[in-house]
Amino acid sequence: MSATEEIELEPIGFVKTKAVGKEVRDRGSISEIVFREELAEALEGVEDFSHVFVIFWMHELPREERRKMKVHPRGRKDMPLLGVFATRTPHRPNPLGLTLVEVLSVKSNVVTVRGLDAFDGTPVLDMKPFDYMDTTGDARVPEWWVRLKQER
Amino acid sequence: MSATEEIELEPIGFVKTKAVGKEVRDRGSISEIVFREELAEALEGVEDFSHVFVIFWMHELPREERRKMKVHPRGRKDMPLLGVFATRTPHRPNPLGLTLVEVLSVKSNVVTVRGLDAFDGTPVLDMKPFDYMDTTGDARVPEWWVRLKQER
Repeated sequence: MSATEEIELEPIGFVKTKAVGKEVRDRGSISEIVFREELAEALEGVEDFSHVFVIFWMHELPREERRKMKVHPRGRKDMPLLGVFATRTPHRPNPLGLTLVEVLSVKSNVVTVRGLDAFDGTPVLDMKPFDYMDTTGDARVPEWWVRLKQER
Repeated sequence: MSATEEIELEPIGFVKTKAVGKEVRDRGSISEIVFREELAEALEGVEDFSHVFVIFWMHELPREERRKMKVHPRGRKDMPLLGVFATRTPHRPNPLGLTLVEVLSVKSNVVTVRGLDAFDGTPVLDMKPFDYMDTTGDARVPEWWVRLKQER
């Protein structure tokens, strides 16, 4: 496989939310993930997890924004100019979103979650249960990251 | 965007590892992620994080395996039969891998990491710094999950 070869994915479902604009980033906001009907079966057992990761496709990002190499975190000029892979900016070569959400309910092909920072209509690509290996007790982060965190 | 519309991604780089077979799952195994050269710039600042998430494409999974709806975790018949989204099986509609790894070094377009459970040649799609919001202190998991964890 060469670097120019493309990888094709299909949405497994779409986000349904009433949140608009900045409300989407509110950790308390509730969304539905409406899976393709034929995938309802593949959700069996999800309700036994309190938290899952959702990988989604930030489809609203214009294609030219995928070529950006560096950004100021949250667009703030008082933050250092950094490579996109050192930040969580949507401006990345493959605009994949990754968010840990709380599972509120699973009914047929619909999973209701809290904390998904994705706009209405966002294609969802994968859902994975939160694993003890997905975390670390001793993460080291840069000073600018701590500063952003404290401001929240 | 409709459910049948496809989403196209490009590898940002590829995994280079000497680990083969089950060695790949060893949390201590060391791999290089060789980014496309023009993306070296986008790595600036990654070295200040001890841990990053890597999202990769499990390219060795045969296409027909993407249609599987249910699996026994790790193929074990003593485990319940569960929907693929309740497990971390590679058999999923979009075979995306998600692993938290330790950053050992960043040199030009090469990031050396510990703990990446991906085979040599695996296309990498994204890299994101580990965020305090990516974890939860109070995850509830099913009994079968605890049992697998204790056996490791």
